[in-house]
Amino acid sequence: MNRILIGAALAVAAFSTAPAFAAEDIVLRGMGSFHVGGRIAEVKGKEVKMIQRQPGGPMTKLDPNGQYMVEQMYVQFFLPKNRKGKYPLLMWHGGGLTGVTFESTPDGRDGWLNFFVRKGWDVYNSDAVERGRAGFANPDVWADQPIFLTYQDPYERFRIGDGVGSWDADAAKRKPLAGTAFPVEAYENYMKQAVPRWLSTDKAIVAGYLALVDKICPCVMLLHSQGGTFGFQVAEQRPDKIKGIVAVEAATAGNVANAPKLKNVPVLQIFGDYVDQHPRWSTFKKVDMAYGDAIKAAGGTADWINLPDIGIKGNSHMLMQDKNSDQIADVIQKWLVSKGLSD
Amino acid sequence: MNRILIGAALAVAAFSTAPAFAAEDIVLRGMGSFHVGGRIAEVKGKEVKMIQRQPGGPMTKLDPNGQYMVEQMYVQFFLPKNRKGKYPLLMWHGGGLTGVTFESTPDGRDGWLNFFVRKGWDVYNSDAVERGRAGFANPDVWADQPIFLTYQDPYERFRIGDGVGSWDADAAKRKPLAGTAFPVEAYENYMKQAVPRWLSTDKAIVAGYLALVDKICPCVMLLHSQGGTFGFQVAEQRPDKIKGIVAVEAATAGNVANAPKLKNVPVLQIFGDYVDQHPRWSTFKKVDMAYGDAIKAAGGTADWINLPDIGIKGNSHMLMQDKNSDQIADVIQKWLVSKGLSD
Repeated sequence: MNRILIGAALAVAAFSTAPAFAAEDIVLRGMGSFHVGGRIAEVKGKEVKMIQRQPGGPMTKLDPNGQYMVEQMYVQFFLPKNRKGKYPLLMWHGGGLTGVTFESTPDGRDGWLNFFVRKGWDVYNSDAVERGRAGFANPDVWADQPIFLTYQDPYERFRIGDGVGSWDADAAKRKPLAGTAFPVEAYENYMKQAVPRWLSTDKAIVAGYLALVDKICPCVMLLHSQGGTFGFQVAEQRPDKIKGIVAVEAATAGNVANAPKLKNVPVLQIFGDYVDQHPRWSTFKKVDMAYGDAIKAAGGTADWINLPDIGIKGNSHMLMQDKNSDQIADVIQKWLVSKGLSD
Repeated sequence: MNRILIGAALAVAAFSTAPAFAAEDIVLRGMGSFHVGGRIAEVKGKEVKMIQRQPGGPMTKLDPNGQYMVEQMYVQFFLPKNRKGKYPLLMWHGGGLTGVTFESTPDGRDGWLNFFVRKGWDVYNSDAVERGRAGFANPDVWADQPIFLTYQDPYERFRIGDGVGSWDADAAKRKPLAGTAFPVEAYENYMKQAVPRWLSTDKAIVAGYLALVDKICPCVMLLHSQGGTFGFQVAEQRPDKIKGIVAVEAATAGNVANAPKLKNVPVLQIFGDYVDQHPRWSTFKKVDMAYGDAIKAAGGTADWINLPDIGIKGNSHMLMQDKNSDQIADVIQKWLVSKGLSD
């Protein structure tokens, strides 16, 4: 009950703000990028191969032995002139994705990156180790091969269609969930954002994120999906450096036994629509709620918003790309202000 | 002789501008990103494997068969409020790199992206097919494996050290070229920008760039290294859409037989220092000069600047990350203005 009331109060505020952000200039005192973390790996004793470097070209030696820079991560930052957020805001994407998650939506609207920069947050948007501009290590360093999502996989797994025959190779014949807020006409653009992922790199990913936190924080985290797992794991190790956490459909939370470490860190957890009938997401939701409950049991703050309960409906797992993305961002912004994290 | 005189006139102008850009705000009417190009590839008849998705977890099926989105490319754009460039400026990075090339330098200064946005250019900075946020295709679609640069490789190949025993695993014992402008103390940060590359994907990369040109141009191109090859190849196919080309140490140029197609496209080619004693770069330089000569023989404009000839010394292959990067950007900007491409 408490959960719904918190959400309802925020929703009233959200609806009262016109979302005409696109016309507003973005004024930055700086922007740029850097890599953080990583290590130099040594490859020894591997066979020298002969390869053809250009089609029709000569066979030349490829010696895989030597030192390699591996497991760094990429961070791009935008620093608004009129800073209102009291700490930097770190955006961490989900599995098989990159920081592109928070940039323009697949149907070409402004994403959450622009939204929160315009609200006065110093935003640090990153690509985790192995993803996007972070690069990835060679197979002599990471033993397994990456996995690749099929074109149809997220359509049902991310709650755009309902998983019961909703997919069709012909876009015109697909059956999205009734009332979906996902821009289904831009599904192809969304799938262009997907990148491969490895199954063996979680420790390296967490090490990269820890290096980022040690460089930039104290800070506030905005986590999505698999970024939620990494975010809570990192926050449990650096609770004094994390001043707030917004976890959007975290998949999943941290270690419940460590949740009391976050008793001084205000946490907001958000879930979208169509969750309870979806085996995967209903399970993750329960795990996330249990983690929030453990924070509260330790005397901390863990607010929970089911978006449909506050009248925000139709959301897929990619909430920040759905057509009502600004409305959800506004709910988050108002929560951050309510916790004293932004003017 | 003509080559040196053009450069000298620009250099005088360059030296007269104070490079205090860092303090100036960046005012944008918009920013965002998109993917362009790509195709849906079908994988059929491959064996279903059993894999372990989490350490210690159960063995689960991995079916590689199905449709995949492949060969798209990534583009991030920054649109200054006070637009002065008459066309969008497309930045294309070199081999084994991404658009990060043009962002902050490895030693944390503003890169050419910020420079040209502040000069009023709509900048479109991209990651080619297979690189960074473009993602890469699975091994059932691309038959070969990517190649990885060793940690030391660019030190000598990109003219930071001289290639005769200049490298040492201990940074303090390395012997950079006398007078190098590369920020040698940040070599590790530079190597964190490197990403794997494939040797079989040139056609897909060119197709991605063509899709970008067809979406955004008419435009001006700013090309680096391998991006020069792709840029000239694309310009030869879309000469009416390209209003100017700045090729920075292109490796290498397009097809000399097609150079006359660029007779209406003003071209500037730039090379840094230590080139003539380096077997690789002295060869590329000759190829690039021959391409420029072929454009001129057809009645076109191909200016050539050897930076040392105009008093800008010490430049490695990564000119836009060297300590005098703003000075070189200023030379480029003045050339663009001189060709009527910017106010």
